[in-house]
Amino acid sequence: MISTLLSRMHGTDGDRTPRLLYGADYNPEQWPRSVWQDDVRLMREAGVNVVSVGIFSWASLQPAPDAWDFGWLDEVMDLLHEGGVGVDLATATASPPPWLTTAHPEILPVTSTGETLWPGARQHWRPTSPVFRRHALRLVRELAARYAGHPALVAWHVNNELGCHNVYDYSDDAARAFRDWLRARYGTLEALNHAWGTAFWSQRYTEWEQILPPRLAASHPNPTQQLDFKRFSSDALKDHLRAEREILREITPDVPVTTNFMVMGGTKGMDYPDWAAEIDFVSNDHYVRPGPQDRDELSFSANLTSGISAGRPWFLMEHSTSAVNWQPVNVAKRPGDLARDSLLHVAHGADAVCFFQWRQSAAGAEKYHSAMVPHAGEDSDLFRAVRDLGATLKALAPLAGSEREAAPVGILYDWQSWWASEQDSHPTSLLDYRQEALDWYSAFLALGVRADLVTRHGDLNRHQVLVAPVLHVVPADLAEALTRYTDQGGHLVTTYFSGIVDENDHVWLGGYPGALRDLLGIRIEEFGPLVAGDEVTLDGPATGTLWTDRITVTAPDTEVLAHYRSGTYRGRPAVTRRPTGGGSATYVSTRLGTRGLTSLLPRLLEPAGVRSDLPAEARGLVETTVRRGPDARFRFLVNRTDDTVTVPGLTGDALLGTLAADGTLTLAPRAVAVLRQPLA
Amino acid sequence: MISTLLSRMHGTDGDRTPRLLYGADYNPEQWPRSVWQDDVRLMREAGVNVVSVGIFSWASLQPAPDAWDFGWLDEVMDLLHEGGVGVDLATATASPPPWLTTAHPEILPVTSTGETLWPGARQHWRPTSPVFRRHALRLVRELAARYAGHPALVAWHVNNELGCHNVYDYSDDAARAFRDWLRARYGTLEALNHAWGTAFWSQRYTEWEQILPPRLAASHPNPTQQLDFKRFSSDALKDHLRAEREILREITPDVPVTTNFMVMGGTKGMDYPDWAAEIDFVSNDHYVRPGPQDRDELSFSANLTSGISAGRPWFLMEHSTSAVNWQPVNVAKRPGDLARDSLLHVAHGADAVCFFQWRQSAAGAEKYHSAMVPHAGEDSDLFRAVRDLGATLKALAPLAGSEREAAPVGILYDWQSWWASEQDSHPTSLLDYRQEALDWYSAFLALGVRADLVTRHGDLNRHQVLVAPVLHVVPADLAEALTRYTDQGGHLVTTYFSGIVDENDHVWLGGYPGALRDLLGIRIEEFGPLVAGDEVTLDGPATGTLWTDRITVTAPDTEVLAHYRSGTYRGRPAVTRRPTGGGSATYVSTRLGTRGLTSLLPRLLEPAGVRSDLPAEARGLVETTVRRGPDARFRFLVNRTDDTVTVPGLTGDALLGTLAADGTLTLAPRAVAVLRQPLA
Amino acid sequence: MISTLLSRMHGTDGDRTPRLLYGADYNPEQWPRSVWQDDVRLMREAGVNVVSVGIFSWASLQPAPDAWDFGWLDEVMDLLHEGGVGVDLATATASPPPWLTTAHPEILPVTSTGETLWPGARQHWRPTSPVFRRHALRLVRELAARYAGHPALVAWHVNNELGCHNVYDYSDDAARAFRDWLRARYGTLEALNHAWGTAFWSQRYTEWEQILPPRLAASHPNPTQQLDFKRFSSDALKDHLRAEREILREITPDVPVTTNFMVMGGTKGMDYPDWAAEIDFVSNDHYVRPGPQDRDELSFSANLTSGISAGRPWFLMEHSTSAVNWQPVNVAKRPGDLARDSLLHVAHGADAVCFFQWRQSAAGAEKYHSAMVPHAGEDSDLFRAVRDLGATLKALAPLAGSEREAAPVGILYDWQSWWASEQDSHPTSLLDYRQEALDWYSAFLALGVRADLVTRHGDLNRHQVLVAPVLHVVPADLAEALTRYTDQGGHLVTTYFSGIVDENDHVWLGGYPGALRDLLGIRIEEFGPLVAGDEVTLDGPATGTLWTDRITVTAPDTEVLAHYRSGTYRGRPAVTRRPTGGGSATYVSTRLGTRGLTSLLPRLLEPAGVRSDLPAEARGLVETTVRRGPDARFRFLVNRTDDTVTVPGLTGDALLGTLAADGTLTLAPRAVAVLRQPLA
Repeated sequence: MISTLLSRMHGTDGDRTPRLLYGADYNPEQWPRSVWQDDVRLMREAGVNVVSVGIFSWASLQPAPDAWDFGWLDEVMDLLHEGGVGVDLATATASPPPWLTTAHPEILPVTSTGETLWPGARQHWRPTSPVFRRHALRLVRELAARYAGHPALVAWHVNNELGCHNVYDYSDDAARAFRDWLRARYGTLEALNHAWGTAFWSQRYTEWEQILPPRLAASHPNPTQQLDFKRFSSDALKDHLRAEREILREITPDVPVTTNFMVMGGTKGMDYPDWAAEIDFVSNDHYVRPGPQDRDELSFSANLTSGISAGRPWFLMEHSTSAVNWQPVNVAKRPGDLARDSLLHVAHGADAVCFFQWRQSAAGAEKYHSAMVPHAGEDSDLFRAVRDLGATLKALAPLAGSEREAAPVGILYDWQSWWASEQDSHPTSLLDYRQEALDWYSAFLALGVRADLVTRHGDLNRHQVLVAPVLHVVPADLAEALTRYTDQGGHLVTTYFSGIVDENDHVWLGGYPGALRDLLGIRIEEFGPLVAGDEVTLDGPATGTLWTDRITVTAPDTEVLAHYRSGTYRGRPAVTRRPTGGGSATYVSTRLGTRGLTSLLPRLLEPAGVRSDLPAEARGLVETTVRRGPDARFRFLVNRTDDTVTVPGLTGDALLGTLAADGTLTLAPRAVAVLRQPLA
Repeated sequence: MISTLLSRMHGTDGDRTPRLLYGADYNPEQWPRSVWQDDVRLMREAGVNVVSVGIFSWASLQPAPDAWDFGWLDEVMDLLHEGGVGVDLATATASPPPWLTTAHPEILPVTSTGETLWPGARQHWRPTSPVFRRHALRLVRELAARYAGHPALVAWHVNNELGCHNVYDYSDDAARAFRDWLRARYGTLEALNHAWGTAFWSQRYTEWEQILPPRLAASHPNPTQQLDFKRFSSDALKDHLRAEREILREITPDVPVTTNFMVMGGTKGMDYPDWAAEIDFVSNDHYVRPGPQDRDELSFSANLTSGISAGRPWFLMEHSTSAVNWQPVNVAKRPGDLARDSLLHVAHGADAVCFFQWRQSAAGAEKYHSAMVPHAGEDSDLFRAVRDLGATLKALAPLAGSEREAAPVGILYDWQSWWASEQDSHPTSLLDYRQEALDWYSAFLALGVRADLVTRHGDLNRHQVLVAPVLHVVPADLAEALTRYTDQGGHLVTTYFSGIVDENDHVWLGGYPGALRDLLGIRIEEFGPLVAGDEVTLDGPATGTLWTDRITVTAPDTEVLAHYRSGTYRGRPAVTRRPTGGGSATYVSTRLGTRGLTSLLPRLLEPAGVRSDLPAEARGLVETTVRRGPDARFRFLVNRTDDTVTVPGLTGDALLGTLAADGTLTLAPRAVAVLRQPLA
Repeated sequence: MISTLLSRMHGTDGDRTPRLLYGADYNPEQWPRSVWQDDVRLMREAGVNVVSVGIFSWASLQPAPDAWDFGWLDEVMDLLHEGGVGVDLATATASPPPWLTTAHPEILPVTSTGETLWPGARQHWRPTSPVFRRHALRLVRELAARYAGHPALVAWHVNNELGCHNVYDYSDDAARAFRDWLRARYGTLEALNHAWGTAFWSQRYTEWEQILPPRLAASHPNPTQQLDFKRFSSDALKDHLRAEREILREITPDVPVTTNFMVMGGTKGMDYPDWAAEIDFVSNDHYVRPGPQDRDELSFSANLTSGISAGRPWFLMEHSTSAVNWQPVNVAKRPGDLARDSLLHVAHGADAVCFFQWRQSAAGAEKYHSAMVPHAGEDSDLFRAVRDLGATLKALAPLAGSEREAAPVGILYDWQSWWASEQDSHPTSLLDYRQEALDWYSAFLALGVRADLVTRHGDLNRHQVLVAPVLHVVPADLAEALTRYTDQGGHLVTTYFSGIVDENDHVWLGGYPGALRDLLGIRIEEFGPLVAGDEVTLDGPATGTLWTDRITVTAPDTEVLAHYRSGTYRGRPAVTRRPTGGGSATYVSTRLGTRGLTSLLPRLLEPAGVRSDLPAEARGLVETTVRRGPDARFRFLVNRTDDTVTVPGLTGDALLGTLAADGTLTLAPRAVAVLRQPLA
């Protein structure tokens, strides 16, 4: 829980008023000591109260196998503490130093095509290397022992962005660990042979030693081998996280431990919902990738991070004050973006707003990545905006610790289906699991209907409507859970390519979608994927792309909500709904996109009685979320547009923004308002 | 000859009436025994009379170096025999089992960039590995010995799709074998140095051991080295085919042997015309790749397979009932496609129509590849269409064994020119040998003029007109043969980049096209390739792309059929014809595409007196082929469109379709009719 | 100096009249002796007086480690000498023979991803291999000793196109040599750690042995490591050049030494301005890549070659008579292109016009590369054009030895900025250093204002206006030099992303462009790169793409020449000028392209009083250059269009072309005129 972190911060300054955290990665080793004093002065000026230190300091802390240099870090920790800044101290294991990779090149990762990933950048280590593990844990133990009692220490930051570059390693170390993992999963080779379907293409294993990662092969490697390698690779990194955490817990049982996730864009190698149980609070890094849905994506990722954190407050460990350095073109943020982006994370449950990084580097691969203190220095509009945001976060302190209030709609986001649905040798290579979920999310935003991203670890029953886009992997127990959900009055909506395979990626036979066929009251004999550029029309204004299905209605009460009006399946059902005990089960067989879904959704939400949170004139212009504290709910209203927006009929006490006496809120472009509404 | 196979089938059931074969790859090892009985029941229902078994069964048959498990296969063979289904038994060597690659990683292929192709998929073996060869032949011997006398056995199926993924191997085994092959081809290093032109770029070899495959190099590798490596690689696989065949012939001299070719799309690594002499009957795999010329391509490939089989009946070993799994988007077949595609192969000489595969897999990399029994099971439109096709093939039994009747036009398809014309460091990298040939073929289809794809092994003199598109490699003997052909009244048509090099890829000097300059009566000083998007106009409505030539007419009787009207060579000849002793030699210097060729062709065909087989109203709408039996010719008429087509003026006895009393045939969309016309 | 070469030629024939050189690479080893006599006959006919011999003859000259075969070369040298043709004799080290790479595979280069570059093509050697070096130098010594006194020998041609394929080698040899180079550059690891900013990402080195080339890494490798590896790689090849040269100088001190540069297109690995001091005269290879700016690029490259040669005459070692063989589509030259392209090089200072190659090869990877004698032979329009050009060059003999007359404008072309500005992890990956410079050059061509490409080794003060596009790397001394330049009345124009970093790629802090901030009188807090397709409008008709800057004017006298009228920085300055002591400093913050620059330039040139050399009606249609001999200036006028152009008001004595009595010159399409104007 992030509250442990906050209570440690209280411990450091005695001030027990609630607060939001504000800060950055801080890399003093890149600067002469003369700059450090200035840093603390500017941090105070900006309202910074927490920084992450030491993330890439291994080579500085341990310059040789048996040499340690903690002096500079002691000094930094003391300085920060004196300045009233808590430290989220990194274990510094993210990037092995040159002496280690020179002595032990066998820790370097290997690609599927056999290429070594050499030093020169960062994160060049095999998650399964026993040599790397040994050296990393030794460093963790030294660090933890040294700073266990330091008053600045408020949390531990394990490694950094685990798996950002090294999640898939095909080395011999990985092969050995993969076998161990498989042995633990399957017990016997017979079970593995069955699960992997090795009767196909003469792949039957007779010794564990024969098994390899899915390295470059002559054709499509075994799909279950591929899927299990994804599972294994996520688990191998989780195992590293646990190994570091165990040492930290042993030495500093009271200091909360986190590691920064990367819930954003296409990052899918790490099964974060599964990892969340391993850390004391969830933290996340998020960067905007410019494009037409860019701020929808930010909201989606923040929302999903909240889902991974089970609705509890979380820590935004990194985002950017302006441009980044790793995209093809790194555009600057416009005025207002900095605060709006930060507050949108807070709206979705972030209690900490941190940036990469405090002071923009003068050298190195990230020198063109923006920071809180830019190359231009403190005399800059950027630093002034940073200071202003610090003040805003201070004003929002009352909502610290508040949780997410359940939305009427849940959108199920499932890593297993993400992994499996996008594998090769499928009906189409154009399927994009995350894009489909994002389009549904954008449609809810357009309607002003609140929707929570939820994971399979969440409680589905909190939502009247549960949308499960491309829920491809449906083991028997999930099928049962979904049936129970609808029997108990829940309204399930699912889409094309859902319910197709079990946990071993074996097709449920007898007609698609095997696992959900009876629940949906339909049967599909064949998929009808569409080539790029091809589309079909449906009843109403919608057009479908990517996919169609040859649907036969099998249950007498299944209703056809829309038919195909063109294409091979012209005249056949495209969208169906089967009523259940109080609930319903709806199937959408094609990709409608945000626009099509926005027009379809009202009809799908009607039986559940779900309506927009916003007056008609504000829908699509304003995003709204709700956090709930012990005494009050905090309603966020975020202007999604570049124009001024007026929202009438609101109540509450404005923590941010000004609510007119008649309950009308006027939001400047990109502005955010927060209303405190007392609980009855 | 496929007749040997048929006579073996007669041997198994005593019924000597002619028949067409119908079936699939059958992989019972993927299913529990309980399904096998059901399989045989459904095969009978569908009219299936032959299946290929054991293609990927190595790991099941030989689970360890010295362990054999034939029990399950015995059972399957018996069951099939009882069910009246003959077995085309695979030698099971297509995919080595994990125990073999673990013990002998040195059998794994290596790419030109040095990457190993690891197990996990299939066909991960070096064609030249002595270790693989030894193990594979041991398996073949065991299998042949065990099933030599089995009554279900009707043919041997060597390996599977030889070279699909492993034709180009750059390993040290390949290097050794390449040297042996070169030694056999050239005898001396002097001869090799001359042939490869190694005076260029300091490449002169002084020891055989210095020679390597054309691995990744700093720039364009030696072109003749590249060409010889293609020849060698095809021969290395042919050598494997022969090695397996020798054992089969030794043990079961009466059982015909085949291996399934892949005459389709861009598959060009294997010189199938050269391989055809090694097997007892030609079999082929064909898959449609959706696109504007997709069914022209199917016809072209079937036609070419017939050419490779020298007009004799052949065996369609694999095609699909609907979608495949390996294309970027795998579209389903529309109603009618399944039968039409199958019968188009029959129209071009297939006496067997088989699919990959019998029952759609629940797991593995091909689980989304359609089959005769789909995931939805027998209660499906797809299985009903499969059953209907079985009945149709039964009705067409009388044409079994009939051969291709020579068409007035031959299109020469030459693997040497295919390989050489598309090599690097050429005037253009956009040249597509097969596309040019396909466009000519499409033009003949549009005109309703029958054209046979023929290879250099065929008898060119059977055709009044011989089209040789991009006949790039013209050794002296071929130049003489073509001159003889035209001297004897034949009409030769050839195109840009023809007659340029000899068998060593050395340019014929003195002006292009050196080898055919005198025959054509023209001389070209320079090529004028066009960049993508560039085009030139010609007299008449045609436009040319890709290529132009700077042509000078050198023979007094050479006629200019069309000039360039734009571009650098404006006013110069674009299409020329030189009359010869009763025949002629025509040159087309640019890429006209199907549309341009369709407008040009009537003029080219006129001197040969070649005319359309179809009434004007059916041209372009209907494809027509003729097979000839001892007593009758069988004329196929295939509706190429999605509309109903009427063809007047026909005669014969309709084996398929209905011929009205007035000789008018009405063909539903995609329908096929077959008329039996007695021979005088 | 090329004059040494000429005086040697005089030595061989006693004729001391000035002359231009004309010839080609000559590869007699590819042809039977019977052709050699014919070659010399045709050379005489064409006016050829120099050829380069032996470039790829290593395998022919040294067929085994201890076997030498100079007989054929003796014969060729004698034949050429008898024919009056001088020989630029290659050291033959460009491509190691098979026996060497077989015995020593450790000389083969290795890519950043670990792939070996195998033999089969050419230039498969590591620049840093001691084994290769030893063998290469042994060959050089043998050759030099043998031909030291041969009368045909007029110059030495070291290797060939050094670095064309092997400039970046990541082998262990390269690693060792890189460390030596770094030790020499930095002296201590502390200095290197500072320069590379290794405090970032835990990259601190504690032993020299830890340092590696920037091989494939998990993310962006250290930028200064990348930049230093580029510097090192250029130096490694330069070191090879020097090693060969030392032997040649030792044995034949009077024979001038060159190596052919590749100043063209994107070739940027070799820092030619830095290499120029190592050779006795500059020679260059240039090939046209078809496209809208293709002849601007030719002019640009020839101009830059002249700059690298410090304005002294240079040697065009290779270009093509027509098509090449290595582009995706190799288009033929149109009539007139051959002479015009050649003479454009002469206009920019070439005293020798040579082609690759003399006789078009019948075999090998370059057989479709055009030559002086094409496949069609001497009876061809191409050979006739070659002969005509020989006559033209004879007529232009008087200008031999004349130098470049300084233009009013210099364009600074800086290899350090080229390398650094295009590195990864930058604000945009779309920045193209050379294209920006070329666009400025095209704008000057459009205006008829002469501009010299100059390097940092040149004397900047010769030009009234100095344009420095994307002068990204500005060490302190360069900043001072530029300030001095403007203080002394020079007009500096620079652009976006200039003045950003020092020689270690460290950002100058405090606001961009740090190194030039005060000089320009502006301050930039943030970059505003634009995504592809995005553009902004400026005052006037111009639009900007790629980049914008958030500019604040800081000096009271800085004038804003244009503002942004759209985009994030709307209303802010886009183009500024600050007056200095008699000069000025102008900043252009966006990419205007040729069209935008053409409209902006007159305003920028005005304060410097720079005006067009051409009458208004000829601007943009004619390119004009001036070479200056001891007694006369030679003015070139090149028709850049495909139409006839008339230029009034000219004076001089026409060496080429006809000047009417009224001073009007009429230029046919693509024609070139040369006027001799006596010096006062």
